[in-house]
Amino acid sequence: MVHPIWQAYPKIESDLERVKKMMIAEISVSNPEIKAKIMDYINASGKFARAGLVLMFARLNQKTISQEKLNIAAGIELFHLATLIHDDVIDEADQRRGIQAFHLAESNRIAIYAGDYLLAYAMRFLYQSGLNDFSGIEQKTIELILNGELNQLKNVADPTMTIYRYLRQIKGKTALLFGLATVGGYQTESISRRQLKQAYYAGEEIGMAFQLIDDQLDFFQKQEQTGKPQLQDVMNGIYTAPLIRAIYQKPILKNLILSIENEEDLQQIQDLIEESDADVYVENLVKKYLNKAIKRIQKLDQNDYSSEILSLIQTLMTRDY
Amino acid sequence: MVHPIWQAYPKIESDLERVKKMMIAEISVSNPEIKAKIMDYINASGKFARAGLVLMFARLNQKTISQEKLNIAAGIELFHLATLIHDDVIDEADQRRGIQAFHLAESNRIAIYAGDYLLAYAMRFLYQSGLNDFSGIEQKTIELILNGELNQLKNVADPTMTIYRYLRQIKGKTALLFGLATVGGYQTESISRRQLKQAYYAGEEIGMAFQLIDDQLDFFQKQEQTGKPQLQDVMNGIYTAPLIRAIYQKPILKNLILSIENEEDLQQIQDLIEESDADVYVENLVKKYLNKAIKRIQKLDQNDYSSEILSLIQTLMTRDY
Repeated sequence: MVHPIWQAYPKIESDLERVKKMMIAEISVSNPEIKAKIMDYINASGKFARAGLVLMFARLNQKTISQEKLNIAAGIELFHLATLIHDDVIDEADQRRGIQAFHLAESNRIAIYAGDYLLAYAMRFLYQSGLNDFSGIEQKTIELILNGELNQLKNVADPTMTIYRYLRQIKGKTALLFGLATVGGYQTESISRRQLKQAYYAGEEIGMAFQLIDDQLDFFQKQEQTGKPQLQDVMNGIYTAPLIRAIYQKPILKNLILSIENEEDLQQIQDLIEESDADVYVENLVKKYLNKAIKRIQKLDQNDYSSEILSLIQTLMTRDY
Repeated sequence: MVHPIWQAYPKIESDLERVKKMMIAEISVSNPEIKAKIMDYINASGKFARAGLVLMFARLNQKTISQEKLNIAAGIELFHLATLIHDDVIDEADQRRGIQAFHLAESNRIAIYAGDYLLAYAMRFLYQSGLNDFSGIEQKTIELILNGELNQLKNVADPTMTIYRYLRQIKGKTALLFGLATVGGYQTESISRRQLKQAYYAGEEIGMAFQLIDDQLDFFQKQEQTGKPQLQDVMNGIYTAPLIRAIYQKPILKNLILSIENEEDLQQIQDLIEESDADVYVENLVKKYLNKAIKRIQKLDQNDYSSEILSLIQTLMTRDY
């Protein structure tokens, strides 16, 4: 079973089931407990957004999904999974997708090496996929994404962070992998470089919107559920788009954040963020990226899947999970 | 500058300089501090034993060293480096090769992602090397090695550990990478599978001896320097060959290790290990593996490098560093 968002796209859903089977089939981890935990992570209901985009963009110009496209989809999801396991170690997270985090079920050391294993495993799928150098994207993409992660880590607790720098950061960290997904799906031997670039940038823009919504959800959603904003990230020095915008409008926030001492300070920060236009501002950024992506998709081959992609984008973007 | 052990082999030394330049040339980490720290790790005087073996085995049957062989050597060393950085995070090490450990210079999170970056970077070299599936070794080797690391981690603090299980463990963790190095160097289009196997097993046996000596050094060397055995590993639940042998001869050690409370307990453990034949036992194991390796090397093509390989093995094995 893949995530229920795919039920509206039965062909993609059944392709994704194949991708998932491939991800599981060749795991060569011999310790049964570690293997079981990796399976848990694969089976927990991730959205498979990246793999789904590979397959949807492939269906724009290919009648059947080749083994190579399935390899790209599996490789990208496995790489994403490897980074999630490492992120959970780093963030000392308790849960991931409703299951106990890897490092808690096992140990930090096992989670680090399990992530390494999945990273190497992912690279095999990607290299076996025939994904080659071409304009805009190349074999180094995975390294560039990890470079993006490193840049983000270096920017932690930097109160001089700007929206511009933040957007550049998530481009390296998230959007590049989405671009690899869409261009990897769309690429065929006969496709022109100009068209490939359209597919790549569409993916990058979807990725930008996707990450901004993630940040928005982290920031505002828990507020409704718990009655207070999720200021954990703020206290950890993570400056995402909503916070950067709020600081820009209410400069006093910059100092308040650095000297949180009690509940009252938290309440004051919360109030200031709510008084700012951060939520609307980020929403507009999301719309801007999506509109750009939609225009590009309309320039690619048109068939039933073109409208399915647009509908999928709406589903992913109006999510509250 | 590569490690001084290579001065006795000037051709290999100059090849290794080229490998090192390649390792540095394509790093795409954009943060200057992180990049500098990665360079520090590359420049710190690692022995480059694995890369050196690639080149030596290549010179057994090839007149010139091709770009592919340099790629294999660079990929294997970069992969080894990635695991060292992750090991240092896991072991909370202070130093590595005389420089401050990565996670201390930066942070755990940056060290984890820097290791991931190097792992992906290593995989590109390995896949670009034209190293293909063939008998005994295949594209999955890196995954199998990481599986070996996971098995070792799972065996931590297991007092029922046997020499047999331990040897199987270091075969997966260390010897496989040495096998990849020797077979990767030796492999040419015209070479028979039987010969490839000889080269592979020779590497594996050198790797087994190499790891056993590492364990031996960790265990006994610091004893001379500090006046007490390096029982840190023992207390961390790491059972290497010397300890397993000592426990086998002095079963009382098994319980003593689990209940260390003070200096006196440590002294008692130290005395018991010294009374055992663990040092001679491990030394004999090393000799057994080396003799096997030497016999295999004598079955491969013979030229000046055959005797250089034998001399290098002696150098690596009689080391006290």
